[in-house]
Amino acid sequence: MAEHGPAKGSMIIKPHGYAVWEHTQRALDDRFKATGHENFYFPLLIPMHLLEKEADHIEGFAPEVAVVTHGGGEKLEEPLAIRPTSETIIWNTYSKWIQSYRDLPLLYNQWCNIVRWEMRTRLFLRTSEFLWQEGHTAHATEQEALEESLRMLDVYREVTEDVLAVPVYSGRKTANERFPGAVETFTIEGLMRDRKALQCGTSHFLGQNFAKAYDVKFLNAEGQQEYAWATSWGYTTRMVGGTIMTHGDDNGLRLPPAVAPVQVAIVPIYKTDEERSAVIEVATRMRDELTGQHNLRVKLDDRDQYRPGFKFSEWELKGVPLRVEVGPRDVASDQVVVAERLEGNKKQLSTGEAGSSMVEMLNDVQRSLYEDAKGFLEANTHDISNYDDFVEGVETEGGFWVGAWCGDGDCESTITERTKATIRFVPIEREDPGASCMHCGRPGTERATWARAY
Amino acid sequence: MAEHGPAKGSMIIKPHGYAVWEHTQRALDDRFKATGHENFYFPLLIPMHLLEKEADHIEGFAPEVAVVTHGGGEKLEEPLAIRPTSETIIWNTYSKWIQSYRDLPLLYNQWCNIVRWEMRTRLFLRTSEFLWQEGHTAHATEQEALEESLRMLDVYREVTEDVLAVPVYSGRKTANERFPGAVETFTIEGLMRDRKALQCGTSHFLGQNFAKAYDVKFLNAEGQQEYAWATSWGYTTRMVGGTIMTHGDDNGLRLPPAVAPVQVAIVPIYKTDEERSAVIEVATRMRDELTGQHNLRVKLDDRDQYRPGFKFSEWELKGVPLRVEVGPRDVASDQVVVAERLEGNKKQLSTGEAGSSMVEMLNDVQRSLYEDAKGFLEANTHDISNYDDFVEGVETEGGFWVGAWCGDGDCESTITERTKATIRFVPIEREDPGASCMHCGRPGTERATWARAY
Repeated sequence: MAEHGPAKGSMIIKPHGYAVWEHTQRALDDRFKATGHENFYFPLLIPMHLLEKEADHIEGFAPEVAVVTHGGGEKLEEPLAIRPTSETIIWNTYSKWIQSYRDLPLLYNQWCNIVRWEMRTRLFLRTSEFLWQEGHTAHATEQEALEESLRMLDVYREVTEDVLAVPVYSGRKTANERFPGAVETFTIEGLMRDRKALQCGTSHFLGQNFAKAYDVKFLNAEGQQEYAWATSWGYTTRMVGGTIMTHGDDNGLRLPPAVAPVQVAIVPIYKTDEERSAVIEVATRMRDELTGQHNLRVKLDDRDQYRPGFKFSEWELKGVPLRVEVGPRDVASDQVVVAERLEGNKKQLSTGEAGSSMVEMLNDVQRSLYEDAKGFLEANTHDISNYDDFVEGVETEGGFWVGAWCGDGDCESTITERTKATIRFVPIEREDPGASCMHCGRPGTERATWARAY
Repeated sequence: MAEHGPAKGSMIIKPHGYAVWEHTQRALDDRFKATGHENFYFPLLIPMHLLEKEADHIEGFAPEVAVVTHGGGEKLEEPLAIRPTSETIIWNTYSKWIQSYRDLPLLYNQWCNIVRWEMRTRLFLRTSEFLWQEGHTAHATEQEALEESLRMLDVYREVTEDVLAVPVYSGRKTANERFPGAVETFTIEGLMRDRKALQCGTSHFLGQNFAKAYDVKFLNAEGQQEYAWATSWGYTTRMVGGTIMTHGDDNGLRLPPAVAPVQVAIVPIYKTDEERSAVIEVATRMRDELTGQHNLRVKLDDRDQYRPGFKFSEWELKGVPLRVEVGPRDVASDQVVVAERLEGNKKQLSTGEAGSSMVEMLNDVQRSLYEDAKGFLEANTHDISNYDDFVEGVETEGGFWVGAWCGDGDCESTITERTKATIRFVPIEREDPGASCMHCGRPGTERATWARAY
């Protein structure tokens, strides 16, 4: 799906992995447009002085920035940062685009690449460059901006669960874990098969912080100047990795049909030339039916240089949900064999009914993968009975651990130092945990969910 | 459609312009996939030593490279180039992916951003960063690679003519104008309304140059080691500019329906609240019919704060092909008024027939824009009778000028210095011009087409 690139921390996304991203993109983009958003494109390179205007933001991103100092053979007058995210350059321009309440809301998104200098890199999950979308919206009221950030979080949840079949929890980040410059960061969090958590997407309510830093004011309906309210939200190629690590088994990938580049692989089986032409004819007809009538993504693997057994393993490893085998006996009896990647079950189907059966089987696979992962998520979410059990459990068992917390960032940091676990989220609406902080014993103010995470 | 970004030479592509690019992307990507290509993604940053392996290539691109020297707060051991194009990093990896003739062909493409440091910048046509796709294929034989490069040139021609409605000539570049590192560069060339030529897309036959520089060998069917044969081909966001500059008139844009972000704008006309609700009801029903049944991109402009006249001008300026007006009298008589952007014609249509009529009208607009531009291209293509007439004509009239050329690059450069015109192309298959070189009088070896170009 991917391999390391020549520069440290960089990644080459191979065609099979990139196709999963393309299907994910389409699923997100369709929903962005259905909720009234349009795409645009801002430059890769940001003049340093622009990046530095929002104090918390630059403090958070300065250590991760890659800097261009030379262009066209000459030293630049001002160094340029490669965008680590685009709030700064976009809000600098929004100051020109927003004059009146009539200009609001602005509901925009861009698909692009991002560079954040990472020391510990890991394919898909943590690389110095990654691909993502970043939404940047501007609103006339606090309420509208807050609703937008939660609406987009729910779009992320829907795509992650319904398309990637990765079940998640939705929540709010603590101040320690917030996006630099945000008032609130909302998150969806999944659990990988190794019981480590993965942040799958975040949506930020930015308040008026960027409007103030970049002087984005508008004349409201009452004729008064106000600062605009902002959101931003991002979803990245890390979720190709998240999908692999949620569903893979010992035999390789198991891809959800909704994003599988190939949903059905047809492997013809033959020895003689005569057998070959009979078998390929049936296989071709089947491919055309599945593609044309059922709109499936099908690969007819007619490579002569490989044996069927080799092809079976290759498609299994690649996580293709269904494999169809067509041999001379199948042709004679007007049947095909369909093998499921998920459980390894095989079925004989008449060629007449095979198409619609496979559509149903793919729906079942999509549902099963989600339900399996959901069961796993729930089985690995624990209530914390006391601090010592949590410290031991989060180390030995992994998974999510839920308990009362005082709300103090220092207490949170102390626990993280001890356990290497972080608060992944607290409920979107604050909930009284009804107990004292598991660590310091002060009154609990938040129900916090902890985990070790990627 | 676009504006300048904060860093010198950079560009912000606004939503209306970006949507044209999205439709262009979809048209290209569908055709790439239909011809067997898959997408992948290679890193933005290329270690300097990799960039330098193909001698002609680095000589061509060195003056345009932007260089990252610092990352994560530290000076890098080796500077990294921002890709000016990706042959180098991709062929470096192809050496790992290609071992045997069984691995060939590789038919891959990527959608990404590119930085080339430009001194003279111009929105869309020449910016330091632009978006594009770059195809990179590897083949076992010279013949196959050559056919691939011509096949992709024809995909470009088809999308440019049929989708963007921009007529072009297909041809081959001279050695002086070739892509650095290519054996042959094929091109499609259009003519803007100001009679300057625009290179609309190029496809390169790279021979074995990159395979030799990056040591990409394969074992052929006869068991011998051979270098692989390469192509690359690119199409960029400049064509959003090319589309604007081909079709625009004094009243603003005229967008081809195939890429227009909004194909039909519906403007309700009302004074009282009562009129408003009756008119909006009909307008909404019409929008839903056009969107749902006819699959059109429709905007119902129900903004209360602007008058109809303001909206008419805005949609005209934005180049929307059809505008529908619905007023109280139209509601009463079960009619709507449809106005064409192209000629300004207005028609009254019954609401029942409006949908299918508009589909036809849009097809007519697409065809008319192409035919108009094609007539303009042909009317501005001249045979060169003698050198002096050419020198004067290319300066005063612009357009394409076709004549005999000796084939000598020095002669070509002398003519370019004198006229600021370049050879845009010669025929793909060499043609005997049957005359002596218009400039030096030596025997003509190529029929060359000259123009001043962007």
